[in-house]
Amino acid sequence: MFKISFYLPTEIIFRVGAVDELEERAKKLGKKALIVTGRSSTKKTGLLQRVVDLLKKAGVESFVFDKIVPNPISDHVDEAAEIVRKEKIDFIIGLGGGSPIDSAKAISITAPNEGKFWDYVPVGGGKIPEKSIPVVAIPTTHGTGTEADPFAVITNPQTKEKVGIGYRNTFPVLSLVDPEVMKTLPKDQTAYTSMDAFYHAIEAFLNVNANPYSDVLALDAMKRIVTYLPVAYENGEDMEARTNLAWASTEAGITETLTGVIANHALEHGLSGFYPEITHGLGLCITGPYLFEYIFDHAYERLAIVGREVFGVYETDDRKAGRLAIKKLRDFQEMFGLNKRLSELGVKKEDIPKMAETGYRILNGVVVVTPGNLTAKDMEEIFNRCY
Amino acid sequence: MFKISFYLPTEIIFRVGAVDELEERAKKLGKKALIVTGRSSTKKTGLLQRVVDLLKKAGVESFVFDKIVPNPISDHVDEAAEIVRKEKIDFIIGLGGGSPIDSAKAISITAPNEGKFWDYVPVGGGKIPEKSIPVVAIPTTHGTGTEADPFAVITNPQTKEKVGIGYRNTFPVLSLVDPEVMKTLPKDQTAYTSMDAFYHAIEAFLNVNANPYSDVLALDAMKRIVTYLPVAYENGEDMEARTNLAWASTEAGITETLTGVIANHALEHGLSGFYPEITHGLGLCITGPYLFEYIFDHAYERLAIVGREVFGVYETDDRKAGRLAIKKLRDFQEMFGLNKRLSELGVKKEDIPKMAETGYRILNGVVVVTPGNLTAKDMEEIFNRCY
Repeated sequence: MFKISFYLPTEIIFRVGAVDELEERAKKLGKKALIVTGRSSTKKTGLLQRVVDLLKKAGVESFVFDKIVPNPISDHVDEAAEIVRKEKIDFIIGLGGGSPIDSAKAISITAPNEGKFWDYVPVGGGKIPEKSIPVVAIPTTHGTGTEADPFAVITNPQTKEKVGIGYRNTFPVLSLVDPEVMKTLPKDQTAYTSMDAFYHAIEAFLNVNANPYSDVLALDAMKRIVTYLPVAYENGEDMEARTNLAWASTEAGITETLTGVIANHALEHGLSGFYPEITHGLGLCITGPYLFEYIFDHAYERLAIVGREVFGVYETDDRKAGRLAIKKLRDFQEMFGLNKRLSELGVKKEDIPKMAETGYRILNGVVVVTPGNLTAKDMEEIFNRCY
Repeated sequence: MFKISFYLPTEIIFRVGAVDELEERAKKLGKKALIVTGRSSTKKTGLLQRVVDLLKKAGVESFVFDKIVPNPISDHVDEAAEIVRKEKIDFIIGLGGGSPIDSAKAISITAPNEGKFWDYVPVGGGKIPEKSIPVVAIPTTHGTGTEADPFAVITNPQTKEKVGIGYRNTFPVLSLVDPEVMKTLPKDQTAYTSMDAFYHAIEAFLNVNANPYSDVLALDAMKRIVTYLPVAYENGEDMEARTNLAWASTEAGITETLTGVIANHALEHGLSGFYPEITHGLGLCITGPYLFEYIFDHAYERLAIVGREVFGVYETDDRKAGRLAIKKLRDFQEMFGLNKRLSELGVKKEDIPKMAETGYRILNGVVVVTPGNLTAKDMEEIFNRCY
């Protein structure tokens, strides 16, 4: 019989205009905020200035840390944590895609404790962060779901380890999910981030710990993405499409908290730890269908449900419906040019064993909940098939 | 475009055997616990003793308050709050159906603040409770959903006002939902409590503020109840059925937190405030179908979805499918003898205007989110049709 374990203490305000809630909410969180953001997009769109202005109206002094890169690195976390310590910051705002928000979470547990971020990573120092500083998440992409989960994905550039950490005190206290601020997301990012959310959902659905709560959210998220990504891809200003993709992303984030992803994320972390220029969403699309084929004997019944409910497959035989689901997924990805081969992206064949071993080791927690008992050798074989 | 506001800080552990988690968890909550329960069932089944023993193993001293009645009253809340104050209780365990758990929530905001419970009721003293004591919910029925919402329903026996209160600090900190402890629930209670959960779900689905998050949970909860209530009604020991009904109840509780019920609950509170011997779940079944007929022009599109997705109605016309949904709901209720008339239950015709006025006034918040802009006069007319 199924089991469900639910703990999601984040308050989530989801609506067009949600960013404006910041003024009222900030007053209760303190007097000094650090805004953690990327190098350019929130400046170009004016969102960073809007957030600074809202904080000012709330009587909150703001500091800006704007060095965060895609596949964010632990060095930046440590650098920002020093600012938090020095300036006695009360709360941190993660503003942007997954990278700034995940960095904000990482900073929030590094600054109030001793040492550096890597001390609090299981494959690093392995310490448990006792204290944390409140984090407000304001996502500008509809992919990571980080606004509704405790996880932060950070890369150690020295060891090329791209890890995911998550503690009871790394949930944002507040997430303002505003589809309006996502409409400037470029075409390619629209596809990458939506597919990131899609893979959170489908992986939670295939997870050996899948349960009815995450199942309904996962299926609903996948359906919304299949319906609305083509619309937003053609017209980024379509607010119905953006709102549905934004909700699909948050919904898929909730499935991560409830159940979590499987080995496709370990594959992707193995890949982009070595090739950080390969976007997370693209990496997932490359390895995903090959993983599902590899574990097919253990996953076809659930893939058949995805086929029927998400992709409109009419087929009574589960194995056939499961195969069709993978085919339809590839067809869907093709619409956005996401069916790349590793060889086209400059991946060196000789790096595959290391990528497989690293992904298997640093994200072992998601490998062991994958149907089929995968080993590092299996992951190597999956990479080879993607080459 | 839809809006979603989510805040549910309760940790929910849902599984067969979840009660055993109490030992580990209690250690972190303090040294003295008050167990709030009813007069007999948790004694007969041995659950009360099991909870006392688990607390003892955790080094927690327990006090038992076992006077709670169905449709619990504010006098008992005040009496228990005095014990909490005198004994310096650290946390409160609500053990049983909705009545003890709701009472535990009410005690948790009365004891640490000044005065009596009614001071903290909007239609009473109207004060906001600043402080609260942690509450652990252990439900033994699968109906109220109180383990996943902030609400407490308490009746003032002097004024006959049955109110629902809910604050940010009236969520349980922990809910242990254990389908195993529900298998002793008698046949009639199995039906009443399941239908309570059903009405939470269908009312959230018809609510003018319905949103995609509560929609998927509401539809899923209704489907589980329609599938598994007949099974558990015939064989209370069927753990697959109990587990699904338990999850449907918690799931419907989450829809209450996300969206909430509509005027059917105001009708029922009007009714059972005057006739507390009429069980909540039965009251909802009496007025529900008549309410849905009354607001049909404003609700038929959503009722059509319920008809098709929950009751397997094959009908393309929305109005016809909506009518069939109400018919199927009545047929379903008939299986458990729940289609009573108010006159058979001893309700006096002359009490109807007062019942309507009281329900309208004390639960106005749920009336205003009902499609069709109902007045107290409309509610009177609905009661007349149920007579």
